[in-house]
Amino acid sequence: MTIPDMTVFAELESNVRGYCRSWPTVFDTASGAWLRDESGREYLDFFAGAGALNYGHNNPVLKQALLDYIAGDGLTHGLDMSTVAKRELLESLRERIFQPRGLDYKVQFPGPTGANAVEAALKLARKATGRTEILNFTNAFHGMTLGALSVTGNAAKRAGAGVPLQHATSMPFDGYLSGPDDDSFEWMERVLDDASSGLDSPAAVIVETVQGEGGVNLASMQWLRKLAGLCSAREILLIVDDVQMGCGRTGPFFSFEAAGITPDIVTLSKSIGGYGLPMALVLFKPELDLWKPGEHNGTFRGNNPAFVTARAALEHYWADAALETATRTKGDRIERALTGMVAAFDGVSTRGRGLVHGVVFDDASQAEKVCATAFQRGLLLETAGPDDEVVKLLPPLTITDGELDHGLELLAGSLDAVCGGRGR
Amino acid sequence: MTIPDMTVFAELESNVRGYCRSWPTVFDTASGAWLRDESGREYLDFFAGAGALNYGHNNPVLKQALLDYIAGDGLTHGLDMSTVAKRELLESLRERIFQPRGLDYKVQFPGPTGANAVEAALKLARKATGRTEILNFTNAFHGMTLGALSVTGNAAKRAGAGVPLQHATSMPFDGYLSGPDDDSFEWMERVLDDASSGLDSPAAVIVETVQGEGGVNLASMQWLRKLAGLCSAREILLIVDDVQMGCGRTGPFFSFEAAGITPDIVTLSKSIGGYGLPMALVLFKPELDLWKPGEHNGTFRGNNPAFVTARAALEHYWADAALETATRTKGDRIERALTGMVAAFDGVSTRGRGLVHGVVFDDASQAEKVCATAFQRGLLLETAGPDDEVVKLLPPLTITDGELDHGLELLAGSLDAVCGGRGR
Amino acid sequence: MTIPDMTVFAELESNVRGYCRSWPTVFDTASGAWLRDESGREYLDFFAGAGALNYGHNNPVLKQALLDYIAGDGLTHGLDMSTVAKRELLESLRERIFQPRGLDYKVQFPGPTGANAVEAALKLARKATGRTEILNFTNAFHGMTLGALSVTGNAAKRAGAGVPLQHATSMPFDGYLSGPDDDSFEWMERVLDDASSGLDSPAAVIVETVQGEGGVNLASMQWLRKLAGLCSAREILLIVDDVQMGCGRTGPFFSFEAAGITPDIVTLSKSIGGYGLPMALVLFKPELDLWKPGEHNGTFRGNNPAFVTARAALEHYWADAALETATRTKGDRIERALTGMVAAFDGVSTRGRGLVHGVVFDDASQAEKVCATAFQRGLLLETAGPDDEVVKLLPPLTITDGELDHGLELLAGSLDAVCGGRGR
Amino acid sequence: MTIPDMTVFAELESNVRGYCRSWPTVFDTASGAWLRDESGREYLDFFAGAGALNYGHNNPVLKQALLDYIAGDGLTHGLDMSTVAKRELLESLRERIFQPRGLDYKVQFPGPTGANAVEAALKLARKATGRTEILNFTNAFHGMTLGALSVTGNAAKRAGAGVPLQHATSMPFDGYLSGPDDDSFEWMERVLDDASSGLDSPAAVIVETVQGEGGVNLASMQWLRKLAGLCSAREILLIVDDVQMGCGRTGPFFSFEAAGITPDIVTLSKSIGGYGLPMALVLFKPELDLWKPGEHNGTFRGNNPAFVTARAALEHYWADAALETATRTKGDRIERALTGMVAAFDGVSTRGRGLVHGVVFDDASQAEKVCATAFQRGLLLETAGPDDEVVKLLPPLTITDGELDHGLELLAGSLDAVCGGRGR
Repeated sequence: MTIPDMTVFAELESNVRGYCRSWPTVFDTASGAWLRDESGREYLDFFAGAGALNYGHNNPVLKQALLDYIAGDGLTHGLDMSTVAKRELLESLRERIFQPRGLDYKVQFPGPTGANAVEAALKLARKATGRTEILNFTNAFHGMTLGALSVTGNAAKRAGAGVPLQHATSMPFDGYLSGPDDDSFEWMERVLDDASSGLDSPAAVIVETVQGEGGVNLASMQWLRKLAGLCSAREILLIVDDVQMGCGRTGPFFSFEAAGITPDIVTLSKSIGGYGLPMALVLFKPELDLWKPGEHNGTFRGNNPAFVTARAALEHYWADAALETATRTKGDRIERALTGMVAAFDGVSTRGRGLVHGVVFDDASQAEKVCATAFQRGLLLETAGPDDEVVKLLPPLTITDGELDHGLELLAGSLDAVCGGRGR
Repeated sequence: MTIPDMTVFAELESNVRGYCRSWPTVFDTASGAWLRDESGREYLDFFAGAGALNYGHNNPVLKQALLDYIAGDGLTHGLDMSTVAKRELLESLRERIFQPRGLDYKVQFPGPTGANAVEAALKLARKATGRTEILNFTNAFHGMTLGALSVTGNAAKRAGAGVPLQHATSMPFDGYLSGPDDDSFEWMERVLDDASSGLDSPAAVIVETVQGEGGVNLASMQWLRKLAGLCSAREILLIVDDVQMGCGRTGPFFSFEAAGITPDIVTLSKSIGGYGLPMALVLFKPELDLWKPGEHNGTFRGNNPAFVTARAALEHYWADAALETATRTKGDRIERALTGMVAAFDGVSTRGRGLVHGVVFDDASQAEKVCATAFQRGLLLETAGPDDEVVKLLPPLTITDGELDHGLELLAGSLDAVCGGRGR
Repeated sequence: MTIPDMTVFAELESNVRGYCRSWPTVFDTASGAWLRDESGREYLDFFAGAGALNYGHNNPVLKQALLDYIAGDGLTHGLDMSTVAKRELLESLRERIFQPRGLDYKVQFPGPTGANAVEAALKLARKATGRTEILNFTNAFHGMTLGALSVTGNAAKRAGAGVPLQHATSMPFDGYLSGPDDDSFEWMERVLDDASSGLDSPAAVIVETVQGEGGVNLASMQWLRKLAGLCSAREILLIVDDVQMGCGRTGPFFSFEAAGITPDIVTLSKSIGGYGLPMALVLFKPELDLWKPGEHNGTFRGNNPAFVTARAALEHYWADAALETATRTKGDRIERALTGMVAAFDGVSTRGRGLVHGVVFDDASQAEKVCATAFQRGLLLETAGPDDEVVKLLPPLTITDGELDHGLELLAGSLDAVCGGRGR
Repeated sequence: MTIPDMTVFAELESNVRGYCRSWPTVFDTASGAWLRDESGREYLDFFAGAGALNYGHNNPVLKQALLDYIAGDGLTHGLDMSTVAKRELLESLRERIFQPRGLDYKVQFPGPTGANAVEAALKLARKATGRTEILNFTNAFHGMTLGALSVTGNAAKRAGAGVPLQHATSMPFDGYLSGPDDDSFEWMERVLDDASSGLDSPAAVIVETVQGEGGVNLASMQWLRKLAGLCSAREILLIVDDVQMGCGRTGPFFSFEAAGITPDIVTLSKSIGGYGLPMALVLFKPELDLWKPGEHNGTFRGNNPAFVTARAALEHYWADAALETATRTKGDRIERALTGMVAAFDGVSTRGRGLVHGVVFDDASQAEKVCATAFQRGLLLETAGPDDEVVKLLPPLTITDGELDHGLELLAGSLDAVCGGRGR
């Protein structure tokens, strides 16, 4: 194995870099579920750009559309000008996504990152209600800009703010406390309905249906329905941050569909661009469209190449139920495999939905070791959770069953290598 | 002239959309200094993606590198993994930019927008100093996320925050008050040095050398030097936000070069990606690299196609002084033309540097009318300034003299049409 | 009954006035447990200056000391100069209060109100820990200045701030949730110990052992011990706000004594001055005395006449256990009476400790009616609780058994008059 | 000279104590302009309780009223109940203060300290305007609670907050910048009227007409008029904090009378109680009386003994123009004396109005030395100003000419002792 030349990274790149430490090689090319480093070594990708590559690396359908657009001098940079590419994307959103689901949303292009989308969503919720406070959930992750960070749980990331984070209060996520599901709302309902609780009436609640960075924590459909009802009864806006769990990650296009709820505001990013290109959307009910022209802007909100690949993805993958069905089937396949895998070990468990799964270690240090071992064996996996105690599986939705099985075998081997001594 | 079909935009896109109102057509393709709408009509671009297209639309040199990279399945989405594309970009930054200028900066990829870069810069400044307050300048523009918005002047944009914006205090920009240049620091120095002024000791000062959105307000080199000295003497970090004015807009790669100063932190975005693709950098002195791994992250900080075009731009345009020289020459050309143009009217003046210029109207309503008239004649121009009283010229640096002259003629005609009745 | 002349109050005094609306007469003189209005009508006082008159109105022992001091030209206004009166008070505090209880506290004179004391306590806790966040409890009341208001629960009072209240998070007070006592810490412990909960590590917890304004909510001794242990294990400072419940209101001098805990910081006001004169103290462990000279000041922190009556009260009432014993005995007397009283009605219950008791109405409107009826019959009583659903009994500690019984009879009659129709 | 026993202060009292360090003795009694320590030594008082003793210590007129009230069991502690004492005070305010000056103010009793009054004023201004920001002035002092501290300039005091202070921006006080008077508004007007200045539209401006703690900085009547006009034209409320300069300190009852302006809100404390007893008022125009009942409350807002002495002072001293005239005359006497005194030294100057004067030292260390020397000679004087560079003269208004001359002689001697070597 060639030792990769990392000199320039060490010399020039800031200490803030992270993933490159977990995967100490220099990647070069990629396609589908595979990355290749500059020495030609291949890695199976169970990470998928932290959920930004639901359709795999350099997906050929999208790739051709992208190459054609660029070759044809399609407008690249469009701010919020009207463009042919944007029109076609809007039409696809309407036909492939909104209409089949009976949704009536306005679309904002808030800047191309999830954090931009969250910032815009919070601003709009405050503007629409005239209130300042936001409720978020324990272990939430919504981004690194000041507004998004204020609703993010992770203490190490929060410390980076350099100022006290404000206007947000954490509530217990589904299952956070020991009791059965519904108990987790006892506290939230009590403080919302008590005029002397000390909690100011909030503008909105922001929630992920599955907390990816938080450790693959699943909100049940019942819990989500109760949350939606609780918000609606009190005229609190419900924001679903579907940046990581949207675009089919849990099966349906929106992760909240199975709960039968309609959030007031939805944020999308990561896989919405299709090809891993920066793009984000904020969707909201028409009556919330209180923005003044230009009140929230940004140079890169019109990344037209991403509009092209986004549209190609919607047309190719969301014109019928095939992808959703396949995701469910593959999800079951993973679940079966992981359930069997963890049964062999004490202090290891698993949870997940669709194509996001976690292997949870009582001994957090094992999670990092499993990822390191898997990398050596050619599998990319990352940790999540407050103590990095969860190995998170986030393969492309387009992965084949064979690739999936191969990856699960590499994981099983890594697990055995790390935890084997303690297996029963 | 065909009436463009804007239906889907009106129906689906949020009211927040802005530029599409100024330029009511649907753009399709673009190259160099020209955009084409779907009816085939061509528009000369004196806007250049708000400064994101210094090398023009779909610049052929960069385009080929981009097509090759995509066609060859180069890694598209890389978070902060080490990639070949990133290594080559870092090497070009060092060789083409840092070394010739004697700069020793660490490089952070903070997420692909200027706002991300500003948020990271502010966080780092606060972390490094343990102080919370930031000084910004009147009429500053730094972005729409909560942290960036707090140092932005525009009241309409600030109102979008929905919460009081904090930890920032405005100081008078060069020329803001009536007196000669140096007077503008009287207030700032006085409150910084008075232990009872009520201004808490700031972590940093953030400044644009030319305020683009603020109305093409120019800081003199002397003023910038004085600012740098004033910060350094008080251990206040100096952040130059070079998102719009960097990458050669005013002539040199960094807009602050001519002042002979070395900011502690520099933000770059817009044209750094070369091709109008989302990308941003934060540069800072090595001793400020106090980030912990992953303390500031983001899904799209590793937009590798942008790294490829960024590198191609550095290699092609910044290996010698040709672009800088050309920018100065064209800048003089514009300045001469505008000076002559405005001399014919009362209440109209001009100012600028390099390839950013403004035509300033005492009667603000004229600025918008000039832009609207220019659009009808095939020229894209936007307004800037607190009352949108400035017509801003921001052509691609790669524009030809012929194109420049053509655009200036269209502007002259528009000016005449709008203000003609009042000309002397 | 003469109709009192309220004209000047209506014409000149701000609409913010409150108690004068509940008790529409003009009071003139007072002694012990009795007030007299200008028509000569007498009212038995079960309110005691909201807990500021534990020793009764114009207590003769203190009155003589006060008259002597004033007549002898004792220094009245002393800022934080050293005075004979202050020395004697400090000596009494040490001998009568600290030494017998094994307490080693430093004494700060923070300005003469409870809010001043709370503001100073919060400032000191933040200064000592370098952290900004405070945990308070649901239904807490700590004062009306901006810092004190931020840890106060009442929404109507919070709305008065005019700015978002920050740096404080509510936790469930003992019994707030449905479960048994200890459960109320499940949430608090979970978020404190979860590095991804979104709750930043707090400087301090501020608690009342009995929430007076909050509705006579009692923290059990077990709960207080658990709270103290939980804080101590995490190096979070524990502030007991004993402004209303200190000075013997619940029996012992400090309300937390029975729990066997030693708070890091204690605030005292209201009855500490003895005679109803403005005075407040902050007590804290010596290692927390990190104040710089004059870092917190205030014109009236040296109200020497109050020092004189404060000392007289300590010497007369706290040299032995008589007052504490009497308070317990009278508390039992009230408890028995109230238990019998409320048994006759559905939807009415009672709770209390020492000489603070509440009668709680399921139908909140009845509480106000009972107070109004009692006033007509010559008894002063006020409501408390988030919905003003609690009639609060707060008689002077020096009340006689006969007066107590008389008041309880008036209350019983009022209760009967208001709720009689629904009695069983 | 007996060495005073300071043991208990050193052992028990917090390090935060301040004045007791400047005046290391133990005071016992006081009358008029004189204090006596426990050894019987007498000190002439040029400090007057930091302006709380305008009528001198234990003024005999007020003393008798106070003794009578206490002896007669007048209600001591009244919260905001209607009392005879409060009615009489309100009537005196109307007859002696409001009516002769044509003022139509509502009266709030906000709690007995200046900080309470300032907190209430800021809350009301925010409530009335729906805006959050306040403009204060350089070197302002308004109190130590969180809201009051945010509009206070002193960095050492601000550091005590332990949280970033927010929602306030400093503007240059009269004469703060080098230019002529009116220039000081150039910056303020510019940022208020520029929609892109970064300063959010403020609720109110809070100002002292003479900054006592800030170093005896005088606002001219012209400057105050311009300020009032500037606020009124922009619907910004004007708050005059007359806590130290009101009650005749500068001559007229309100310090702003001579400017011919009517502030929207006025705060009074310190000498309003007459006898040095804690009391405060907020006065505001009737249309601002938007408080809900009890929205701002506080236990000691009804300090009835202070109402009695307050009324006695109004009746005795403000029924005619004698006190105002005498204050002006004595002010001239001080001014003449000080002008002569400082003429002998380089780097020493003087300024003042009515009975507040300052001796300003270029070498700040001399100010403290002068005060220490004066104390040894039997004169109480304190320093003020950002660097404690000003010796502040604040004698009781009731001081005799003989006492005044005696004090000025002691000061002259102290000045000579400290600065003599440098005299010319």
